[in-house]
Amino acid sequence: MKGRYSRNRIYLTPKEQEHIKNYPIILGGSGIGSVIAECALRLGFENITIIDGDQVETSNLNRQNYVEGDITVDKVHAIKERLLAINKNAKITVHNQFLTSENVAEYISGQKIAINALDFSSDVPLIFDEICQQNAIPVLHPYNLGWGGLVTVIASDGLSLKAIAKRGDSFNELRVVEYVSSYMKFWGEPQVWLDEVIQEYLNEEEKMSPPQLSIGSWMVASMCAHLLFKIATGQKFKQFPEFYFSCIKD
Amino acid sequence: MKGRYSRNRIYLTPKEQEHIKNYPIILGGSGIGSVIAECALRLGFENITIIDGDQVETSNLNRQNYVEGDITVDKVHAIKERLLAINKNAKITVHNQFLTSENVAEYISGQKIAINALDFSSDVPLIFDEICQQNAIPVLHPYNLGWGGLVTVIASDGLSLKAIAKRGDSFNELRVVEYVSSYMKFWGEPQVWLDEVIQEYLNEEEKMSPPQLSIGSWMVASMCAHLLFKIATGQKFKQFPEFYFSCIKD
Repeated sequence: MKGRYSRNRIYLTPKEQEHIKNYPIILGGSGIGSVIAECALRLGFENITIIDGDQVETSNLNRQNYVEGDITVDKVHAIKERLLAINKNAKITVHNQFLTSENVAEYISGQKIAINALDFSSDVPLIFDEICQQNAIPVLHPYNLGWGGLVTVIASDGLSLKAIAKRGDSFNELRVVEYVSSYMKFWGEPQVWLDEVIQEYLNEEEKMSPPQLSIGSWMVASMCAHLLFKIATGQKFKQFPEFYFSCIKD
Repeated sequence: MKGRYSRNRIYLTPKEQEHIKNYPIILGGSGIGSVIAECALRLGFENITIIDGDQVETSNLNRQNYVEGDITVDKVHAIKERLLAINKNAKITVHNQFLTSENVAEYISGQKIAINALDFSSDVPLIFDEICQQNAIPVLHPYNLGWGGLVTVIASDGLSLKAIAKRGDSFNELRVVEYVSSYMKFWGEPQVWLDEVIQEYLNEEEKMSPPQLSIGSWMVASMCAHLLFKIATGQKFKQFPEFYFSCIKD
């Protein structure tokens, strides 16, 4: 019988495989985080902590790693069960709580890389980054852009997302998407569809959470698993204000 | 309670959502196909047929959509259970058989798009394409390149993969990867790592299946779900010898 990671050969050395096994990563948010966690675990990150106080809803099933039987269940318990089904020996730690400015420091203690997959409905995501930066923990920011995926990394000695905040406005993920759109236009790769989606979203009468597709989730999960590996093995990676963008729209 | 596809809004019109619901797609092979199927189902493709005669092995868990409890179980039965857990009303048809030149025509009858995720250990994958072409069914070819994903589409009126076969050699997926590598070099985007992986693979003493990562599977699943949508809704898409390649390696 061939081992679990036998098909990772050539891409990962045995030493790298062993290195990422116990390399602790923490996911703030188990929405898109639920898809990232599975992709990372299958690659070999077997030490994963996930924090989220939310429950699974029907509307999550179009893009998150839950099944109908999980509806109304705490997300962290549902995802823990899925991850342990994939690898019962993995070290999966979950906290059924929302992150607050008070509890971030405690949870990130001992972690090596963080993934900020939190809703931007408060200042908590920026506080999360700030405390990670103070503790020299790089933070991945994944964004589901529907047809594509976007990830930027806040490094401990780099810029924070506040660098692109509008003066006086509360910062949110839309600002990041607008920034990326401008940046790509400037560099000769305009993403017209992205501007159209932003406009349609802003025109919606009812204020709702942004639309997201499984296409974006799976893309972002792949990108984050790759970035986790790059960072854990000391490879170079792009930092914010640079970013990774993947899409086959046109 | 918000509906299953409420967060697909803006990206998909209600009409498109309804259109893909019953749009029949067929997956030849439930290895990488198992990951593609989930991404496509979550997007809204609820009419999926999967054919594979293989059983789940431990070495599949690094990148395919199975769990430890599925080991030794028929792949198509394990994936059917997973897909129905996500959407019990989906129409998931499975055939626990290997495709042969004799049974392809029967299985693809009534299908609109095919995904050729078969092992290139015989002529069957090429015969599959040929019969799909005769029946005006476009065929997606997904390839897991470890750090990245590759998809090319064989259109009914387009070239077949035979166009890049070496005279006298039996055709295999490695030839496609070599072709893509040359093409990207020619267009000024050389993927040095890809050539190195090919070389290491060819140098292996024991003849084994090519290495693959979850990173490549998740990437390819995203790309295929997107292409299924493009094709099903009549959008333009690139055909072989052009291809889609996604990777954040460097």
